[in-house]
Amino acid sequence: MSILAGEIAEQPAVLERLLDEGYPLVAEVAGRIQAAPPRYVVIAARGSSDNAARYAQYLFGAYNRLPVALATPSLFTLYRRPPSLAGSLVLAISQSGRSPDIVAVIAEGRRQGALTLAVTNDPASPLAQAAELVLPLLAGEERAVAATKTYTAQLFVLALLSVALAGDRTRLSQLAEVPAALRRTLERNRDLAPQLGPFRDARLLAVIGRGFNYATAFEVALKLQETCLVLAQPYSSADFRHGPIALVEPGFPVVLIAPSGAAFPDLAALTEDLAARKAALAIVSDAPTLLARADLPLPLPPAVPEWLSPLVAVVPGQLLALALAWVRGLDPDRPRGLTKVTRTV
Amino acid sequence: MSILAGEIAEQPAVLERLLDEGYPLVAEVAGRIQAAPPRYVVIAARGSSDNAARYAQYLFGAYNRLPVALATPSLFTLYRRPPSLAGSLVLAISQSGRSPDIVAVIAEGRRQGALTLAVTNDPASPLAQAAELVLPLLAGEERAVAATKTYTAQLFVLALLSVALAGDRTRLSQLAEVPAALRRTLERNRDLAPQLGPFRDARLLAVIGRGFNYATAFEVALKLQETCLVLAQPYSSADFRHGPIALVEPGFPVVLIAPSGAAFPDLAALTEDLAARKAALAIVSDAPTLLARADLPLPLPPAVPEWLSPLVAVVPGQLLALALAWVRGLDPDRPRGLTKVTRTV
Repeated sequence: MSILAGEIAEQPAVLERLLDEGYPLVAEVAGRIQAAPPRYVVIAARGSSDNAARYAQYLFGAYNRLPVALATPSLFTLYRRPPSLAGSLVLAISQSGRSPDIVAVIAEGRRQGALTLAVTNDPASPLAQAAELVLPLLAGEERAVAATKTYTAQLFVLALLSVALAGDRTRLSQLAEVPAALRRTLERNRDLAPQLGPFRDARLLAVIGRGFNYATAFEVALKLQETCLVLAQPYSSADFRHGPIALVEPGFPVVLIAPSGAAFPDLAALTEDLAARKAALAIVSDAPTLLARADLPLPLPPAVPEWLSPLVAVVPGQLLALALAWVRGLDPDRPRGLTKVTRTV
Repeated sequence: MSILAGEIAEQPAVLERLLDEGYPLVAEVAGRIQAAPPRYVVIAARGSSDNAARYAQYLFGAYNRLPVALATPSLFTLYRRPPSLAGSLVLAISQSGRSPDIVAVIAEGRRQGALTLAVTNDPASPLAQAAELVLPLLAGEERAVAATKTYTAQLFVLALLSVALAGDRTRLSQLAEVPAALRRTLERNRDLAPQLGPFRDARLLAVIGRGFNYATAFEVALKLQETCLVLAQPYSSADFRHGPIALVEPGFPVVLIAPSGAAFPDLAALTEDLAARKAALAIVSDAPTLLARADLPLPLPPAVPEWLSPLVAVVPGQLLALALAWVRGLDPDRPRGLTKVTRTV
């Protein structure tokens, strides 16, 4: 078994650990944040962590009424003209905690007196040392270059933080169901290699989501790109309909992220449009009617609320990337030309 | 001549009109904003206007110390859970002023008592009516589906607003030079069709920029996609280096946006990496040494400061899109499957 496969399989256990050991830490951090409630959140992140930040835009916006700005680290490094961070919570998300530009955003936030929080898998990293508050991912060492267990751990820590900030017991009980739902998702998408069909040789594909799962589209596209050397491009269903859809010809491979929820009708309507153009469809969904439209159905367990669905919806995408790497004879643990820690300055 | 070619050629005149007639309006709006200085800016926009918003992230961040959050309109429409906008300036950018979801963000901002500003080409549009403050683009009717003159007009209005808010006479005098620089850019990239070489038949290409010209990469990619049915994907040079570069094989077409400035060394270094991989390079730059590395040099006039370079750097991309449509026998004014006004709800 590859390292990547092992780390994908670890995810339910990581989330269980975060529920048990992580939540008290999160509750403490939430208390510190509530002591001087921020007007908005600035998030600095790159790669998979930036996709977790995209999730946070919907999560904190919808449930904590907090607007989220994704930081432009170049302003802090290349241009040395950082904006004023007064009144914000400056949040950095980084698996390694070692990206210099992400550390620079936190350091500047602290210099300006803003509250700073690092979410990282390495509580001894430069990022964790630079931030006033730290939340660990408790994911254990991640050895595969493509992030999987640290991505879902990031989403889960963000979800725990949203719940703790809102003091919302209903959503806390929903969170407790996620590890089991993730485990069922792994079981239901176990053996994708023989089912790949038109996706087997795809060199170019689109991955489409919306709302909470806009982040999932980005993350699934990134996994496919990292492990299989395909050009996988993420889109929101709204944007795809107003442009790129004109490029869809018969057989064009599309991955749709379509769990139940407010965004579902838009994805279902787009599925019909794409089916009419004879696109090859991989569909991540809990809806049997939609899965029946798929060339490659990627089933989700039922009853996961939409705000938590990104934690399970990304998993079939991880397994798809793994299966594609395997049938193409690529090493999923060490993709060509990539390194684990990005050192942008 | 196509409508698109005519609208591209109109751009210097539109900017001159904005300098003469627009600046007094901008100064008045700046006064209103300064009366209750916002902590940060929330921008709602789609398509080309969203690329103008990307420019604003660097512009307002670097010169006005204002963080910029790009709004997630779905929170306002699909989820009906808008975040709190207290302390922000809510800015909508829309050529038509008729996108329902963009209007919804402004309406919610106004309901919450935040200052709202619409930048639109139609001061009688629903968006302009919903906003407390309005800045017109003064671009005249835009008839081609692909936005060109309204995009540069949006950048220019944002640049005027940044200058007026900062009361910066040096930058105001730099702004006054832009129409002439744009005119020279048009002249220097007049006849691209015979020079297209490896770009002529490209179906897939990457467009790369960074910092202020990250927006330009997005906008050039959008123009190519809209007019030529190519899959043109925008990237920051930082992200491209840490992933997609592994996909570059000999002949892979890349457009580099590399005007002089703080981001230039990074783009120049990436150019060397791409040349070593024998990529086909179109390079938008004012640097003769870099242009000499290009299969398709797209020259910019010298001495445009980096913060204004997006106004000229986008122009060769517009002309490239036009030339590609022409050699491919496509109608640049009416791209297949697209409409001028996007009506996302």
